[in-house]
Amino acid sequence: MQGNPKEIRTLIRHGQLSQPTAGLAPGYAQANLVVLPEELAFDFLLFCQRNPGPCPVLEVLEPGTYEPAMTARGADLRVDIPLYRVFRNGALVTEQRDVTGFWDDGQVCFLLGCSFTFEWALLRAGIPLRHIEEHRNVAMYATGIETEPAGIFSGPLVVSMRPIHESKVVRSIQVSSRFPRAHGAPLHIGDPASIGITDLTNPDYGDYVEIREDEVPVFWACGVTPQAVALRSRPPLMITHAPGYMFITDVLDEDLAVL
Amino acid sequence: MQGNPKEIRTLIRHGQLSQPTAGLAPGYAQANLVVLPEELAFDFLLFCQRNPGPCPVLEVLEPGTYEPAMTARGADLRVDIPLYRVFRNGALVTEQRDVTGFWDDGQVCFLLGCSFTFEWALLRAGIPLRHIEEHRNVAMYATGIETEPAGIFSGPLVVSMRPIHESKVVRSIQVSSRFPRAHGAPLHIGDPASIGITDLTNPDYGDYVEIREDEVPVFWACGVTPQAVALRSRPPLMITHAPGYMFITDVLDEDLAVL
Repeated sequence: MQGNPKEIRTLIRHGQLSQPTAGLAPGYAQANLVVLPEELAFDFLLFCQRNPGPCPVLEVLEPGTYEPAMTARGADLRVDIPLYRVFRNGALVTEQRDVTGFWDDGQVCFLLGCSFTFEWALLRAGIPLRHIEEHRNVAMYATGIETEPAGIFSGPLVVSMRPIHESKVVRSIQVSSRFPRAHGAPLHIGDPASIGITDLTNPDYGDYVEIREDEVPVFWACGVTPQAVALRSRPPLMITHAPGYMFITDVLDEDLAVL
Repeated sequence: MQGNPKEIRTLIRHGQLSQPTAGLAPGYAQANLVVLPEELAFDFLLFCQRNPGPCPVLEVLEPGTYEPAMTARGADLRVDIPLYRVFRNGALVTEQRDVTGFWDDGQVCFLLGCSFTFEWALLRAGIPLRHIEEHRNVAMYATGIETEPAGIFSGPLVVSMRPIHESKVVRSIQVSSRFPRAHGAPLHIGDPASIGITDLTNPDYGDYVEIREDEVPVFWACGVTPQAVALRSRPPLMITHAPGYMFITDVLDEDLAVL
């Protein structure tokens, strides 16, 4: 099931497609969704601006609007994602495929870049990714590195880890560096203890994958960071995509490349 | 007069240095300052996020604070720029070297990247810049291209123009592309009419410089855009640096490079 972004969003909107979005609309950027009350929007945008690694902003909508006119004209962020999560005061209250009933005029939608963009680029460059081969979720860890706080938002940086063959480490840095709006270059290579990770086999989110003799663990800033940090502030209402069920934009991955 | 950023800021703070800042602290990024009331801060940050070419954000301070802890720890944005401008309701009311008297707890400071960063990179790459050789201000033009509006902020994109020898055009694109946080790659090369400029000899800001037979006009997004756009909204109070009198940060130009 591939196809173009608009067709896929239409299927999603009408309930005809409800799967995770990895692999759909190849070549087009997918995005994390965060919806927050307007009172928190400046602090959260500032948090993203200060932490562009974990929080690469693709689009921020005007308060109360739900059509992302810059990245997917005609789309509706209330119904065009296959599965949403709704949180009240920091606690998950429901997962559902349509959040129109939770909408009001005082909410601000943030679309943030997603690792799928640089993972595609790594695969195209002949760099295999074990979690994809094994159909697992990527391994993610809370680190000892603090994000730059902004207003009420603060917390540890979360990273994803991918084992890379030692002969491909340099290339993996070059390839992912082209996509700063999808987490960009790794932030650490090698010893997990250096960034405060004590046990690689026990990730905080996702699934551990084996690291072989001739491989090096490479760590990228992770899109779980902004959600985790935003939730810690217990906003009265927060809506996000469900993990793996992303928003598919009309933006080409290549249009996010810096060079 | 060169020296390190902190020493130079100290001289400025004590009134011992009052010149334009071009050429000071070479290798360190300089920044545009925009100070706006907190009520307009989200809209302006959103405007910058949507228009990263003309408005590359280096740092946004918490409301009411004036120490840019991320780019110049210990600095004071009220006194560490040699000359400020103060606007009320969109009209210039004073130019002075200390704006402490205009400060209150509800203001937000924005530091935006400055063309000096990529101009240094062009010069290091052996690409001469006529306005620097002739000690003139760069030529700037309002274009027919509209910025992406955000909240109350909208208006035309302003560009700067530099004549580049035809043999150096490709290199000038490569070199400036490394610095998206200082306006980055050109947005147009060649025919000024294509971007709505009717008379190159008559810039809207700055000074015209000659374009010779074997040269091509190359246009970059310009840091005048955010000021011009913000002023159009007639904020009750807005403080900026005076043109050419920039804030000198502790950030290396090279640390702003993407590759």
